[in-house]
Amino acid sequence: MAARPARARIRTYAASGVDLAGRARALPELLRAARYTAPASHGRVVEAPGHYAGIVRLDGATIAITTDTVGTKVLLAEALGRWEEVGEDAVAINVNDLASVGARPTAIVDTILCGVADPAVFRGIGRGMRRGLAKARCALVGGETALVAEIVRGLDLGATAVGFFPPRRAPILGQSIRAGDRIVGLPSSGLHANGLTLARRLLAASSVRLDRPRPGGRRPLGRELLAPTRTYSAAIDAVADLPGVVGLAHVSGGGVRNLTRLSRAVRFVLDAWPEPPGLFPWLQGLGGLSVREMFGTFNMGIGFLVVVRPKAEARVREALARAGAPDAIAVGHVERGRGVELPAHGLTFRDYA
Amino acid sequence: MAARPARARIRTYAASGVDLAGRARALPELLRAARYTAPASHGRVVEAPGHYAGIVRLDGATIAITTDTVGTKVLLAEALGRWEEVGEDAVAINVNDLASVGARPTAIVDTILCGVADPAVFRGIGRGMRRGLAKARCALVGGETALVAEIVRGLDLGATAVGFFPPRRAPILGQSIRAGDRIVGLPSSGLHANGLTLARRLLAASSVRLDRPRPGGRRPLGRELLAPTRTYSAAIDAVADLPGVVGLAHVSGGGVRNLTRLSRAVRFVLDAWPEPPGLFPWLQGLGGLSVREMFGTFNMGIGFLVVVRPKAEARVREALARAGAPDAIAVGHVERGRGVELPAHGLTFRDYA
Repeated sequence: MAARPARARIRTYAASGVDLAGRARALPELLRAARYTAPASHGRVVEAPGHYAGIVRLDGATIAITTDTVGTKVLLAEALGRWEEVGEDAVAINVNDLASVGARPTAIVDTILCGVADPAVFRGIGRGMRRGLAKARCALVGGETALVAEIVRGLDLGATAVGFFPPRRAPILGQSIRAGDRIVGLPSSGLHANGLTLARRLLAASSVRLDRPRPGGRRPLGRELLAPTRTYSAAIDAVADLPGVVGLAHVSGGGVRNLTRLSRAVRFVLDAWPEPPGLFPWLQGLGGLSVREMFGTFNMGIGFLVVVRPKAEARVREALARAGAPDAIAVGHVERGRGVELPAHGLTFRDYA
Repeated sequence: MAARPARARIRTYAASGVDLAGRARALPELLRAARYTAPASHGRVVEAPGHYAGIVRLDGATIAITTDTVGTKVLLAEALGRWEEVGEDAVAINVNDLASVGARPTAIVDTILCGVADPAVFRGIGRGMRRGLAKARCALVGGETALVAEIVRGLDLGATAVGFFPPRRAPILGQSIRAGDRIVGLPSSGLHANGLTLARRLLAASSVRLDRPRPGGRRPLGRELLAPTRTYSAAIDAVADLPGVVGLAHVSGGGVRNLTRLSRAVRFVLDAWPEPPGLFPWLQGLGGLSVREMFGTFNMGIGFLVVVRPKAEARVREALARAGAPDAIAVGHVERGRGVELPAHGLTFRDYA
């Protein structure tokens, strides 16, 4: 790992030490080399390249699978000695990805890599996982604890979630999104589990303390950063069968650019995005980051987006409110074109990467 | 991580630096804390505690999920600059676990943790995964590449596999195993992906070279150790619907002790276990390991076990032969009692841990 960049240089996610360009070159090599189509007796893959979850049609059911890790947020958990939040994250980040194709979560398996297995740490992770499982209404059905002191420093935490499509529900992949559709946003609970490498570098390069609130903050900064990812899957499951719900997007790594995973044939115009909570502008100021870097890295206050037909919007928002998301708000609309636009900031993202 | 133990002390898997006792204390804490039962609308979990895969009944299908990492075998891949073998391992170790409950593989997602994503490494992993996918007849439907230079040294590789039970096939969990049943073994292709931390320590403490064959070996030792895990899932899928197949066990970490995961109400007597291939006694001699340590850590030449009713044995072996496993052999039988016995070595394992 490279030495820590000097403060003045940490102006982008890439400069924080995250090798995004390398991944963009390497991953296609793996995917190309691994391409294999199984006989239909082993299930039929529903093609949704670049989407949030893999989907397979079996004889009697269609299932979705997604996997993600908590990433460097575990380093914050370690620094604070609190593990429940990242335990909840491990479930939430995955069920939110399932929700992004309209699947209902059924099962989770977790993977912990560590050198030494600390019972108190494992108990904390388990408690947090239970909160996430209860919110998503799914069960932990297995997992792996790999003792690999030679590979991992501290602990790594990830999970895989499996979901399914209830009878008469098809995957919602965004293909029918069209100009005129509306975009509804569900607020986030903080940074969730994305952009933590950048945030931690910004903090380390300044003299900010984790045990005190930031200016304008109500909790100690460490606790504010560690807040678990909001679980959206139950609210989304409650609207996925309504007519007029045409696209779903978890605002995870890559921020609002995630919308381009749904369709490259339209332009998502986020002209009613609310003012981001104070944590985001404070982080931005700490590192002198551009607004482009902020919206392309963090969730900026909205963690999940629902694209709906105009006449379905009111009914969808009512259903979201009944299912635990009364705070859903209109954040934009769809136009002809391509990419994601934030007119108030003069920003356009053409692609996900 | 502790300093490398001096040569004379590396007589057990635990002494190789793998914190088995810590995991045995910590993991139950997580499982207890995370316990949650979801409403039936999210699927019904089939209870199979300690088994190889989690199983969930959905409305139209029953699915199985399992997750595992290649562990420290990646360090050998790195030392040799060869990644195809561990790519194949990542698939094989998981589909073999699915086979252990009688499930047919349908989909894989992989997880790679690294600091820098090297295109050549990713291509190698992808090529190996394709071999595993083709043998198991399932597709790669997603994955995660986490750029976590602060957490991982080098690269970690794991995967999750999802399978299903074809119409009229129930999960095969071993509950009906009884005295008199026969045990058929399928040979392994080498160490597979288990016990590598111990094997690597033994080599490092001696002056053995990886680029030359060991005494009696035919390939350079590094290549012999790196040989990919044999994929058993297609052969097992071909016999899982035959009457009289009552138990299935992947001989992975824990060696023959894995049989106790199927039933604690019988005694598995391995009285016809073949002489292990030369690699195993050579490793044993290198470290002065006990035969108990060897059989409780490595697969000792047999990577998968099938428990069958006596009158089903011939038919099962014929079907295995037609499905790519003509080398299946009788290795033992089931008696009243408990645990696993190797009479030729005077060994008994009472439990898995």
